[in-house]
Amino acid sequence: MKIYLAGPDVFLPDALDIGRRKREICARHGVTGLYPLDNVIDRGASDASLRIFEGNQAMMDACEAIIANLTPFRGPGADAGTVYELGYMAGRGKLCLGYSNDPSPYPARTARFGTVTTSSEGRLIDMHGLTVEDFGHPDNLMMIHALDSYGCPLVVPQELPADIWRDLASFEACVRLAAARSA
Amino acid sequence: MKIYLAGPDVFLPDALDIGRRKREICARHGVTGLYPLDNVIDRGASDASLRIFEGNQAMMDACEAIIANLTPFRGPGADAGTVYELGYMAGRGKLCLGYSNDPSPYPARTARFGTVTTSSEGRLIDMHGLTVEDFGHPDNLMMIHALDSYGCPLVVPQELPADIWRDLASFEACVRLAAARSA
Repeated sequence: MKIYLAGPDVFLPDALDIGRRKREICARHGVTGLYPLDNVIDRGASDASLRIFEGNQAMMDACEAIIANLTPFRGPGADAGTVYELGYMAGRGKLCLGYSNDPSPYPARTARFGTVTTSSEGRLIDMHGLTVEDFGHPDNLMMIHALDSYGCPLVVPQELPADIWRDLASFEACVRLAAARSA
Repeated sequence: MKIYLAGPDVFLPDALDIGRRKREICARHGVTGLYPLDNVIDRGASDASLRIFEGNQAMMDACEAIIANLTPFRGPGADAGTVYELGYMAGRGKLCLGYSNDPSPYPARTARFGTVTTSSEGRLIDMHGLTVEDFGHPDNLMMIHALDSYGCPLVVPQELPADIWRDLASFEACVRLAAARSA
C-alpha cells in the first residue's frame, strides 16, 4: 500500500529528516510512504508553485491512502494545504487517516488566540463574534467525520508530546491502522 | 447548475441572512446556490455534528460546482472546513471557484500574527521557525492551483472591503464565472 504523507512537516527546518523518519516507520510496517518533498522541484523556477501542486497531486493519485498531520498550524486548526489534500483524497474515495499531536478540544485551542465567550443567544463565540464549533472535537467537524467515514477516527495522544512537531507516536499509530487495512 | 456555497459565513451571527443574499445573487445569474445551513439539523442532538457532515456531503454530491469563501479565518489562512470541502469537490472533479475578501499575499497575512523573518539559510520563517510560503499567492498553493486547475483563478478584490464578512462583490464575480461555464 502506498500512503501519501501530508502535513505541515514540509515547513519545518528539518523537513527532510522528518520525511525520512516517516518513510522508515512506514517501511517497518510493510507499507510505502510518499512524502511531498520527495518530488524534485526547482523551487527558484517561475512556475515552482504550480509544479509543486502538480507533483503533490500526482503523488496523491498514485497512493491508496493518506495520513494527514492535522496538528494545529498558525492558529487553532490544521494547515490548509494538508486539509485540502485530505478533502481531495476523500473525494477520490481513498483511505483517509489523520492525527493531531494536540488533543485539546477546539474551543480550548481557540481560546489561546483570544477570549471565547457565550453570546446573548447562547452561541459560543470568539472575539470577533464568530461561532466556535463546540461538538467536543479537536478541529472542524468536516475533517473529523471525513476520517470516521473514509478511514479511522482522528488519532490523538493522551497529552501534548514534548515536541509537537517531531513526536511520531500518533503518526505510527496511523501507519499501523493503514497496514491492518492493507493486510 | 447547482453550486455549493462553502465558507465560514455559517459562523457569523447573521449566517442565515448571508445565505439568503448569496442564494438571491445566484438566482439573478440563473444558477442555484445551496447553502449548508439550508440542511435542517437538530443542533442539540447527540449526533448533530455527524448529521451536519452527512448533510453537507450530500449537498456537495448534488452540486456541479463549489464557490468557496477563502477569506482568512482565525489566522492567516482560510477556514479548514471550507478548504476540506474545496478539496473534496476537486477530488470529485467538480467545477471549483473561490474568493478571498483579503487580497494580501500570504507573508503579509502571516506577519499580522507574529514576526516574519529570513533564516540564515534564506528561508522566510515565522516566529516558530516554520517556513512561510512565498510564491506571491494569498494562501497555500494547493488551494490556489486547485482553483486554477478545476475552475478559475482565486477572485480577490482590489483592496480590502469595508466589511470583509459581508461584502459579496467577489462572491458575485465567482457566480458570474460559474454561470458563464453553465451557459
